[in-house]
Amino acid sequence: MNAEATRQVDEVRATVARLHGELTRYGLVAWTAGNISARVPGQDLMVIKPSGVDYDDLSARTMVVCDLDGVLVQGDHAPSSDTAAHAYVYREMPQVGGVVHTHSTYATAWAACGESIPCHLTAQADEFGGEIPVGPFALIGGDDIGKGIVATLTGHRSPAVLMRNHGVFTVGRDARAAVKAAVMCEDVARTAHLARVLGRPVPIPQADIDALYHRYQNVYGQRTAPANS
Amino acid sequence: MNAEATRQVDEVRATVARLHGELTRYGLVAWTAGNISARVPGQDLMVIKPSGVDYDDLSARTMVVCDLDGVLVQGDHAPSSDTAAHAYVYREMPQVGGVVHTHSTYATAWAACGESIPCHLTAQADEFGGEIPVGPFALIGGDDIGKGIVATLTGHRSPAVLMRNHGVFTVGRDARAAVKAAVMCEDVARTAHLARVLGRPVPIPQADIDALYHRYQNVYGQRTAPANS
Amino acid sequence: MNAEATRQVDEVRATVARLHGELTRYGLVAWTAGNISARVPGQDLMVIKPSGVDYDDLSARTMVVCDLDGVLVQGDHAPSSDTAAHAYVYREMPQVGGVVHTHSTYATAWAACGESIPCHLTAQADEFGGEIPVGPFALIGGDDIGKGIVATLTGHRSPAVLMRNHGVFTVGRDARAAVKAAVMCEDVARTAHLARVLGRPVPIPQADIDALYHRYQNVYGQRTAPANS
Amino acid sequence: MNAEATRQVDEVRATVARLHGELTRYGLVAWTAGNISARVPGQDLMVIKPSGVDYDDLSARTMVVCDLDGVLVQGDHAPSSDTAAHAYVYREMPQVGGVVHTHSTYATAWAACGESIPCHLTAQADEFGGEIPVGPFALIGGDDIGKGIVATLTGHRSPAVLMRNHGVFTVGRDARAAVKAAVMCEDVARTAHLARVLGRPVPIPQADIDALYHRYQNVYGQRTAPANS
Repeated sequence: MNAEATRQVDEVRATVARLHGELTRYGLVAWTAGNISARVPGQDLMVIKPSGVDYDDLSARTMVVCDLDGVLVQGDHAPSSDTAAHAYVYREMPQVGGVVHTHSTYATAWAACGESIPCHLTAQADEFGGEIPVGPFALIGGDDIGKGIVATLTGHRSPAVLMRNHGVFTVGRDARAAVKAAVMCEDVARTAHLARVLGRPVPIPQADIDALYHRYQNVYGQRTAPANS
Repeated sequence: MNAEATRQVDEVRATVARLHGELTRYGLVAWTAGNISARVPGQDLMVIKPSGVDYDDLSARTMVVCDLDGVLVQGDHAPSSDTAAHAYVYREMPQVGGVVHTHSTYATAWAACGESIPCHLTAQADEFGGEIPVGPFALIGGDDIGKGIVATLTGHRSPAVLMRNHGVFTVGRDARAAVKAAVMCEDVARTAHLARVLGRPVPIPQADIDALYHRYQNVYGQRTAPANS
Repeated sequence: MNAEATRQVDEVRATVARLHGELTRYGLVAWTAGNISARVPGQDLMVIKPSGVDYDDLSARTMVVCDLDGVLVQGDHAPSSDTAAHAYVYREMPQVGGVVHTHSTYATAWAACGESIPCHLTAQADEFGGEIPVGPFALIGGDDIGKGIVATLTGHRSPAVLMRNHGVFTVGRDARAAVKAAVMCEDVARTAHLARVLGRPVPIPQADIDALYHRYQNVYGQRTAPANS
Repeated sequence: MNAEATRQVDEVRATVARLHGELTRYGLVAWTAGNISARVPGQDLMVIKPSGVDYDDLSARTMVVCDLDGVLVQGDHAPSSDTAAHAYVYREMPQVGGVVHTHSTYATAWAACGESIPCHLTAQADEFGGEIPVGPFALIGGDDIGKGIVATLTGHRSPAVLMRNHGVFTVGRDARAAVKAAVMCEDVARTAHLARVLGRPVPIPQADIDALYHRYQNVYGQRTAPANS
């Protein structure tokens, strides 16, 4: 690896380590049960959380580097046990630069019921373009989880999938966008749960969902990337 | 802009930036999805949050200044995507000095069901004078949201409106009062949700609601403004 | 007031100011909507929170001192709008040294339904000796709230009462014990709510409730006062 | 006690004191209502939380040391009122090196209903190997609680038991593993509660539960101990 490639890997290590702080800030993870990865631009590499290491102990140095088959290339720890799923997504979805996995509470409750989250909120139309879909039940230990993620997200607007009986995977053009999708997925899942328990949530007409989604993806934010508020 | 006008704008910038800390403290916002604005007293200007900027990065300097048509007058960032709604409120409701918008969870669950929050709590009678009303579904991108807010709040005691399928807008004589209304709206929405799920909430007779509201608006606090406890 | 009496008042001011930090730590209060008072031992005085002052701005200095009719004796701010209720309790219940009032969410949901909290938890048997009772609806502005508190708690084991459509009042031999009762009341109210929503909570036989209560009040802690764990 | 034994006790004191910070970080405890203990390796001693002492005031010094009959051996405070239950577990389950007790909210709601938590989540299959069982109602003050814990956990995969109408006890090869089980138990109890309220949680086939459990216990983490992510 030449000096520029090394510098780039180190930058991604720092970014991925830092972004894990958003998972704890928003209460999306318990103990060590969630992880973030990022593709290293222009290299067939990904940076991912080490397995079973406390969020407090994460730093650029403790992150690990794998190739896109999930094989450890660099680092002092074993990679996350979810590495195979992340790697599969990077291999099959070239536009994806970041992947996040959590068992965030409300989203995982929808996943436990095998139900997609219907779109009753403008914020969901903005970020997810409609319902948040459910993916199949899949066992860890091979490519099954990765295949389920890719099969569900391909051709779908949503950057988030609820893997049945398991939890959430989100993707984005970079790790920060995938983290944003994970935060918004839990926020939307919680509000949708509370609305369902409260009464009869009112559907948003499909044409309005489409209008909101297209505006949000193309107009909002500081002109460098979609963003809200 | 003369020196005094500039000084006044700077003071409002600092206040609005600081008040955003209450939105995160009370858990009313996820990622960048809520915003506060304030009218600049005596000038046809408002200070508002920039679009898509993290709450951690907000400061007096990063706030933006718009005229009351929502056109950027001063600032390095694009204004909040909700600027048109804030601006419409300032144009149509001259007594309003501050506006807050959130997707706070429980209030937005009521909004997703298109239900107003009935008044079962003395704290709600105090602050909102009765039910918290629902406004229409409205698309972003013009004056529709602003019109829905103004049509719902005009002639109503409540400083908060639940915009259907969307979230909450609150108003106040200044930005701090609007923030207080946003905090109390979520608090009341949560308790009312839990009471509905638990059993049969007991209505408060209208005469008692009236008595509580009038006392609270006229008697409480440190004599400079309504306040509770 | 002689030097010793002044010293004692100052000590109570510091204790009451500090204990308000437990209300925010445990999320029992929003904005300025809860308050703590303490009787000054041996004097017909109470120290209480000022009205409408932020929890961040509370200090020994900002607390106010009232007589047991609720009349301001010392302090730069108006006393809490709930002062009359606190004062009534001190006049009628000489064994009470501290009073706490909150609108804590789950307890207030039970109060909104006018339901007492049935005893399905050993922790509730320990601290409250059985159900947590509901008191009457009462308007602020006279002695009605105080009378409702005293009428409900007199002859009852529970140091907490759910005032209908309003919130919680707790009492204790000192302010710390009343704060503990407020914290435990919300904890028990939340668990009881979740159990009700989940399934069929199992009653604890009265003889077991009695045994738990008597042991806890007489045996636990570091021998200076009842305490748990 | 020789110097090496003393050093070892001191090390366990520090570990147990520090681990209590995880109980407050994850919101598993209110006031002083939860406790952690650890066996001192190679000695018939345990280190446990003192009774009724604030979590803020816990330190290696304030911890207490008991023998495995629960009799105080060393320390300035009375041991936790749950000491007899911890001691019984250490006497009867030699493989256990740590015990945790909490009244964490969602797990205790299941306990109040006398219902075990069915396994609808891969994370539950990983950590608990299937359902989390309910133990009997038992009064404090003798060995009844300890007996109920041991009878329920013996021959069961789960390191957690929901004691009916009471709360959770978890065990582990050391105190950190028991704390992890307590954190994951509440996380799973919360998601399972929300799924039940939302709809129809989908069961995981027993063969898949078995596969997940065996993999997690034998393959995950940094090769020194089972861990996830």
